[in-house]
Amino acid sequence: MIQDQIRQWLEEHAWETADFLSQLIKAASTTGLERPAQELMAEKLRRLGMEVDVWEQGGKELTGHHCFYSPRTEFAGSPNVVGCLKGTGGGRSLLINGHIDVVPPGEPELWRMSPWSGHIEDGKIFGRGASDMKGGTVSAILAVEALQALGFQLKGDIIIESVVEEESGGSGTLAAILRGYRADAALVPEPSEMGVFTEQQGSMWFRIAVQGRVAHGGTRYEGVSAIEKMISVIKRIEELEKQRNDRLSGAPLYRGVPIPIPINIGKIEGGSWPSSVPDLVTIEGRMGVAPSERMEEAQKELEESVLALNKVDPWFSEHPPTVEWFGARWLPGSISPDHPIMDILTDSYRKVLGKEPPVKASPWGTDGGLLTQLAGIPTVVLGPGITALAHFPNEYIELKRILEAAEIYALTIMDWCGVEGGTD
Amino acid sequence: MIQDQIRQWLEEHAWETADFLSQLIKAASTTGLERPAQELMAEKLRRLGMEVDVWEQGGKELTGHHCFYSPRTEFAGSPNVVGCLKGTGGGRSLLINGHIDVVPPGEPELWRMSPWSGHIEDGKIFGRGASDMKGGTVSAILAVEALQALGFQLKGDIIIESVVEEESGGSGTLAAILRGYRADAALVPEPSEMGVFTEQQGSMWFRIAVQGRVAHGGTRYEGVSAIEKMISVIKRIEELEKQRNDRLSGAPLYRGVPIPIPINIGKIEGGSWPSSVPDLVTIEGRMGVAPSERMEEAQKELEESVLALNKVDPWFSEHPPTVEWFGARWLPGSISPDHPIMDILTDSYRKVLGKEPPVKASPWGTDGGLLTQLAGIPTVVLGPGITALAHFPNEYIELKRILEAAEIYALTIMDWCGVEGGTD
Repeated sequence: MIQDQIRQWLEEHAWETADFLSQLIKAASTTGLERPAQELMAEKLRRLGMEVDVWEQGGKELTGHHCFYSPRTEFAGSPNVVGCLKGTGGGRSLLINGHIDVVPPGEPELWRMSPWSGHIEDGKIFGRGASDMKGGTVSAILAVEALQALGFQLKGDIIIESVVEEESGGSGTLAAILRGYRADAALVPEPSEMGVFTEQQGSMWFRIAVQGRVAHGGTRYEGVSAIEKMISVIKRIEELEKQRNDRLSGAPLYRGVPIPIPINIGKIEGGSWPSSVPDLVTIEGRMGVAPSERMEEAQKELEESVLALNKVDPWFSEHPPTVEWFGARWLPGSISPDHPIMDILTDSYRKVLGKEPPVKASPWGTDGGLLTQLAGIPTVVLGPGITALAHFPNEYIELKRILEAAEIYALTIMDWCGVEGGTD
Repeated sequence: MIQDQIRQWLEEHAWETADFLSQLIKAASTTGLERPAQELMAEKLRRLGMEVDVWEQGGKELTGHHCFYSPRTEFAGSPNVVGCLKGTGGGRSLLINGHIDVVPPGEPELWRMSPWSGHIEDGKIFGRGASDMKGGTVSAILAVEALQALGFQLKGDIIIESVVEEESGGSGTLAAILRGYRADAALVPEPSEMGVFTEQQGSMWFRIAVQGRVAHGGTRYEGVSAIEKMISVIKRIEELEKQRNDRLSGAPLYRGVPIPIPINIGKIEGGSWPSSVPDLVTIEGRMGVAPSERMEEAQKELEESVLALNKVDPWFSEHPPTVEWFGARWLPGSISPDHPIMDILTDSYRKVLGKEPPVKASPWGTDGGLLTQLAGIPTVVLGPGITALAHFPNEYIELKRILEAAEIYALTIMDWCGVEGGTD
């Protein structure tokens, strides 16, 4: 039976897989430093017989695009890698989109080992990016490798993208779309913990600045603390988050999710001297956007909410907080549960894991939003990484999940793209 | 009459005085960059016929001293300057202590002109350090210059110190004490707005760190925000400030002062990524210490208060906030209202301004704490700078106040040190 062949091949190549992922983790591909990891990727895809495209994105078409969001406009040292495997013809094409960039590891002392160890132990591979999402991309590559090794010839094309900048707003995937990469459906192996995400939360970054009035700390009553004023803003954002999420209560995909669309405050900074009253504090954060919501509506709601603080504190009338939308942005995405690839994926899942897949809404944006909304490619998210470890210290992934995902992908690819001499 | 002669001389030299102060402001003597301003000072004191000592402090005797507090231990480019004018003998000596270092200007857009303009207009000299406290030091120099120009020979010695590091904890004055500079009384022309400060608030810097637990912002409920936890700490500090100040209610020197010994939170910083739940936030601030209080008691009170948060939030039991005392520290200081120099100063004040001087407690520490507690020199604070402008944007000083202060100092010096051929 074909599935048994695939599974056996995957199991026989488990250690090689773990080792390849370990190398990718060791390559420490934080923003701006993606090249070494991408060279490993390109080499791997070439060995699968793929036509490999490696390029550093840039230019006005990209940076002037209305979907371009990034803290930077120069991408030297940060190439994208796309591998294409031409089908024999007559089949449906599939695009698999993974990102190579990883978020910073955070406080080093919270890690038991180096975030870049790539340590393998007890069937787990450790390090920043293991779950989010090098492990998922490795699963996809492994699926194609298994089909090739077992001699299956696909009718439709397979495109594997290893892009930069997902964590900063998706400009890598945008660049790949602008370069012309399209397919009949797309799969994003982000860390869904083997759940099928048909809807993806959009999100965008904001920066809010609040003014105070400086004074000597010994007569602090003569100044106005921007820290105290910022606390009012933070409390107001907490209230808004509650209002926005109350609206989603009852939505079936969000059952049991404490905060479906959170507003996260990720950074705070202000003041310049312990003995001075701080005159400026800024926060930076991420606003979740519901799949049904427009980005602009959500922006307006946050802006109006914060500006309305002047009704409770006259200070804000003369010194209104400034709200800026900067850096990253991920469009929300969704796919119809009735789309043909959903049937195939669900069926493959059942065959591999012997149960119905949990269908959910993702708690984060992915590049699937761009693929859906800009490129018009129906996109579904399913990946082996552990959701709760993404952006966490001591991130890891289980090798068993990587192999399971690869098996699901291999069966899905065969059914979706079609196989020469196959039964359909 | 002698006083008329002095006043006339001062008025005739008003423009030169404003110009000298303007040059000192332009020399922009923030921490580490004091040399150009100190060279102006040294040159000025030499021209008064003083023996001038210029040295870069350092060494174990200084940095290992129990009163040494500084964010740095290297002082290259930051010399102290001390000028001594030997008296003819038989008089009391007076030490005048000013600091050359200034705090950073803060947000540049809050300044109407460059913080380093030294602009002179409408009898005001503008720029960082004008009030705190180059203007005060200039008054003292001017007083000595006037007495010299008018041919008075002092019996007691005059020592004028222009030290670094007052804003960072007093290591410049500590270095001068260790170098042996002593006198029978000391005057600190810090910006008291022509008030006489017999007591000075002590203060010290603290840093508090609070941990959270990182998570992806899209599932922020899986993490713990260190920003939210820090807000609890800030609220606790506000309560403590109230308790500490309630104890001082009724103290005559603090009548009408909204918060006699404030706890100022001057800086906040935490988190590293807008889409991540922040796992570490730190604040830095300044704790005011009552003249009657011991530094260690105040420290213990803050530490215990913050640690007691675990009674209302179990998170703090497993992740207690850390409290660190770092950088700057100013000992509280006081002088007996019956000390002979108080009579002389009060009398001089009356003669110059025709009214009783307001006697107060200073809302900030000065190097007078070290002079009193470590060197045993009775010390009083009186200066021409505007208290509320210290550490503020658009800091300035009024030339008229500089001249008035110089006149008071000149009369005080004559009475305290004695004059050859004088009446006493």
